[in-house]
Amino acid sequence: MASTIKDVAKLSKVSVATVSRVLNDLGGYSEETRLRVLKVVDEIGYKRNAIARSLSTNTTRTIGVILPDVSTSFDGEIIRGIEDASHENNYSVILCNAGSKGIRTLAYLKILEERQLDAVIIVSIKIEDEYYKALKKLDIPYILISTTSPKYDMPNIKVNDLSAAYTATKYLLDRGHRKIAMISGTKDDPIAGLPRVKGYVKALSDYGINVDKDLITYGDFSYKSGIDCMNTLLERKKQFTAIFVASDDMAVGVLNVAYRKNIRVPDDLSIVGYDNTKVAIMSIPPLTTLSQPLYEMGCKAFNEILSMLNGSCFNEQIIMNHTIVERETVKWLK
Amino acid sequence: MASTIKDVAKLSKVSVATVSRVLNDLGGYSEETRLRVLKVVDEIGYKRNAIARSLSTNTTRTIGVILPDVSTSFDGEIIRGIEDASHENNYSVILCNAGSKGIRTLAYLKILEERQLDAVIIVSIKIEDEYYKALKKLDIPYILISTTSPKYDMPNIKVNDLSAAYTATKYLLDRGHRKIAMISGTKDDPIAGLPRVKGYVKALSDYGINVDKDLITYGDFSYKSGIDCMNTLLERKKQFTAIFVASDDMAVGVLNVAYRKNIRVPDDLSIVGYDNTKVAIMSIPPLTTLSQPLYEMGCKAFNEILSMLNGSCFNEQIIMNHTIVERETVKWLK
Repeated sequence: MASTIKDVAKLSKVSVATVSRVLNDLGGYSEETRLRVLKVVDEIGYKRNAIARSLSTNTTRTIGVILPDVSTSFDGEIIRGIEDASHENNYSVILCNAGSKGIRTLAYLKILEERQLDAVIIVSIKIEDEYYKALKKLDIPYILISTTSPKYDMPNIKVNDLSAAYTATKYLLDRGHRKIAMISGTKDDPIAGLPRVKGYVKALSDYGINVDKDLITYGDFSYKSGIDCMNTLLERKKQFTAIFVASDDMAVGVLNVAYRKNIRVPDDLSIVGYDNTKVAIMSIPPLTTLSQPLYEMGCKAFNEILSMLNGSCFNEQIIMNHTIVERETVKWLK
Repeated sequence: MASTIKDVAKLSKVSVATVSRVLNDLGGYSEETRLRVLKVVDEIGYKRNAIARSLSTNTTRTIGVILPDVSTSFDGEIIRGIEDASHENNYSVILCNAGSKGIRTLAYLKILEERQLDAVIIVSIKIEDEYYKALKKLDIPYILISTTSPKYDMPNIKVNDLSAAYTATKYLLDRGHRKIAMISGTKDDPIAGLPRVKGYVKALSDYGINVDKDLITYGDFSYKSGIDCMNTLLERKKQFTAIFVASDDMAVGVLNVAYRKNIRVPDDLSIVGYDNTKVAIMSIPPLTTLSQPLYEMGCKAFNEILSMLNGSCFNEQIIMNHTIVERETVKWLK
């Protein structure tokens, strides 16, 4: 039979409330009392029970993180940041791997409700109406990372995709490139698709360059689609000296096609990627890319959640800084 | 005030036990009763409370997974497998990112104890005496993936490292290579370090080749250390036509050095990696490598845990099959 807090109180001759205060380090007792209680705890092997405690405090100190695929380095970096910040604050993270396009998101939201988690973070999943409704019904703090809703006001942390794509394209323009192609993410993605195309178009326009629609293709952010899009661009037989690619995975696909077709990077073709994940560092040649601070976004999201749990109002949106990380895939044109 | 299971019983005119049976789909009631109970549940908005239920059933349906770094594609693939299998069986996964060399492992084991998780999986962390003791004290099912203890009997799932390294080296020998270098992982690692060197040495010996110690270097499995080790090998000015590298990340480091020094792969140098993570697919050229079935190992580990929770004895060790995945970094020597 496991010992209870009542046993501890009885043996150390103080009230249950005092034992509880000692165990939670809340003060209001003498050092002598503290030592006596802890000695009894040690002697009878009393263990605090996190489950019973969550029933009485109405908190589980657990948050859920829903993301498409933990095995991608994009999601992996973000959840590493979330988990590190959670651990520092004595919170645990339940991992919810919702699959491609987040198809299991709603199922997970139901599980999280039953488990009475304290908060939810959703990473990089397109927000459907039913997700929004489920979150409202849950009525706990939540935050989105690298996604947002065009329809509802939902707290989120992301970089400004339009502005980041503008920066990436301008980087190529400032180095003398004028024929610049683009491989976009999913065409109808209102978060990471369209705004990046708009940023690319705006930069070209600001430099007085007409946009050639044949120089734009649409993938789905994956390595495989980078290969397909690059092949499509080459088949169109239009000239370009540089290409802006809306994810590092797709950019590495472009490098693969270039390698097979003897197109030298950056001598024949300059490339700027997007994300700054591990593949950008490890590619050959190492990829110049638009960096999103993924790990920091994870930490920041947890810290915002913590503020909300402590009663702060939510921030509607936090825009993180983006930067260009210069490596070896861009050449200055004379 | 939230409604309780008693409210449901009263309004549907059955016992609490019957409501419980209906909600847990256990049978032993008429279809009419089932529909009546579910109607009441719906009408009064009764929610089952996972926390209260875990107090009464003595199970949390939650497992902890402790691994070094979720953002690596190695750990990411394994935990994806674990989480998929858990989700299918209505279990949740608490992610414990224990950091380089698993330095937070003990801290997590204490947290998992307080949270009364049903089971623990430890991935790719060297098992210290104190971890073993903490696991014994926890007294719940556990399993190790891609690690084991040379000292204690602990259930684990892994490939046979010696035999896999033998296979990789033999693959090069069978293609005519005789001067074969090796980049090993950490020298004193009794799991993934030494046994892979032994497999390499055994293959060479079986082909009547003397081992040249100058052709072996020791890294730490990381990309950076692959670069360093390759530079060390080149500085030694010994000839070799092929190299077996004990992780894909290090092998991509070798590719990077080869690229910078104009060593053509596979024309001047053949390379076989180890793991078959995403970087092996995306490297230039794509890497021939020894494949560990990481995702399957994750699924398998959860399914073994489930058997243990249902009362099965544990399996001492499950050895998974390894295979060579042929891509483009090995040349046949005539």
